[in-house]
Amino acid sequence: MEFSSKLLEKAVNEMSQLPGIGKRTALRLVLHLLRQPNDQTMQLASALQNMRNEIKFCKSCHNISDTQLCEICANPHRTSDIICVVEDVRDVMAIENTSSFRGLYHVLGGKISPMDGVGPNDLNITSLVDKVKQGEIKELIFALSSTMEGDTTNFYIFKQIQDCDIVTSTIARGISVGNELEYTDEVTLGRSIMNRIPFESSLKS
Amino acid sequence: MEFSSKLLEKAVNEMSQLPGIGKRTALRLVLHLLRQPNDQTMQLASALQNMRNEIKFCKSCHNISDTQLCEICANPHRTSDIICVVEDVRDVMAIENTSSFRGLYHVLGGKISPMDGVGPNDLNITSLVDKVKQGEIKELIFALSSTMEGDTTNFYIFKQIQDCDIVTSTIARGISVGNELEYTDEVTLGRSIMNRIPFESSLKS
Ligand SMILES: [Zn+2]
Ligand SMILES: [Zn+2]
Repeated sequence: MEFSSKLLEKAVNEMSQLPGIGKRTALRLVLHLLRQPNDQTMQLASALQNMRNEIKFCKSCHNISDTQLCEICANPHRTSDIICVVEDVRDVMAIENTSSFRGLYHVLGGKISPMDGVGPNDLNITSLVDKVKQGEIKELIFALSSTMEGDTTNFYIFKQIQDCDIVTSTIARGISVGNELEYTDEVTLGRSIMNRIPFESSLKS
Repeated sequence: MEFSSKLLEKAVNEMSQLPGIGKRTALRLVLHLLRQPNDQTMQLASALQNMRNEIKFCKSCHNISDTQLCEICANPHRTSDIICVVEDVRDVMAIENTSSFRGLYHVLGGKISPMDGVGPNDLNITSLVDKVKQGEIKELIFALSSTMEGDTTNFYIFKQIQDCDIVTSTIARGISVGNELEYTDEVTLGRSIMNRIPFESSLKS
């Protein structure tokens, strides 16, 4: 692609670093910004800068937060001894949206995937295991996507805590196998949390 | 969508102002930036800011440019009395890519589209008509997308200059009717410029 302007080229190149945005799409987006008032670009740029510079992760559950402890962890009305283990922030948002869960979360930040170079140490697993070993957790609900990587991650965590006095469950697989959690409709997702099953019995099938 | 962070929410909202980017896609893009080094976000933000603040449009052809006169208009080896009329910057890039045209361009900045509220005065039409009336142009090649809006725009311009001593042509319609110019392959596009036909004869069909 030959550009008539270095400024345009640089903007397109940076935009096309985003996943799923090719050069052509990036050019379309950038030309759109040029046709809009100056403000729109400035607000987009500063929203991204502010987010990247100032965002925090909850020191307890690793959810994205503007405070040290996220709103969910800080809420005294939530049941603090039931923890729902999820891959990322989007899953917290999806489950919160169903209003079917009143416990806390633990955000792993991904799932174990050797193909993508993601090992257990790249995820927030140690802090979860520590939490469980401190003995204040009654139940752990695995709510990872029902993919091979999700199953591997569940099992890896399960092995490390299986000697602890704790109930482990997985959300009911009303979710079709291989589907990403965040694309599941609210009703199915809500129901699969209500009907969660002991993790061990999910291994038998 | 309920966000656990105002900073995240603001970034997602701004990102989803872009055409074709819904809230869900915006969230995916923004979370990707959070997983990447700080630099990537800063470079994206400053590339967009610099572009929006500093970009210029060629005072002659309205192409995007870093200088007052774009590289094409400023090139003494280009044939300055043949002008190819296009909708936007992407079309200039697409035609330049074919290496089949050595004249200059005129970028309209869109096409007449009453449905989208775009009238003749929203486009760079007056400066084109003025150029033609100054009598230094020998040929005008209409290279707009072959859609209803493209045809309307061609015809609107044609009516204003039909009394001038000038050849008008349209690129050959090897391009399938209704197709956007920028998605045409190089060979077809190059050939359609070589085989351009007088504009009047395109009206007969
Ligand atoms: Zn938290
Ligand atoms: Zn120019």
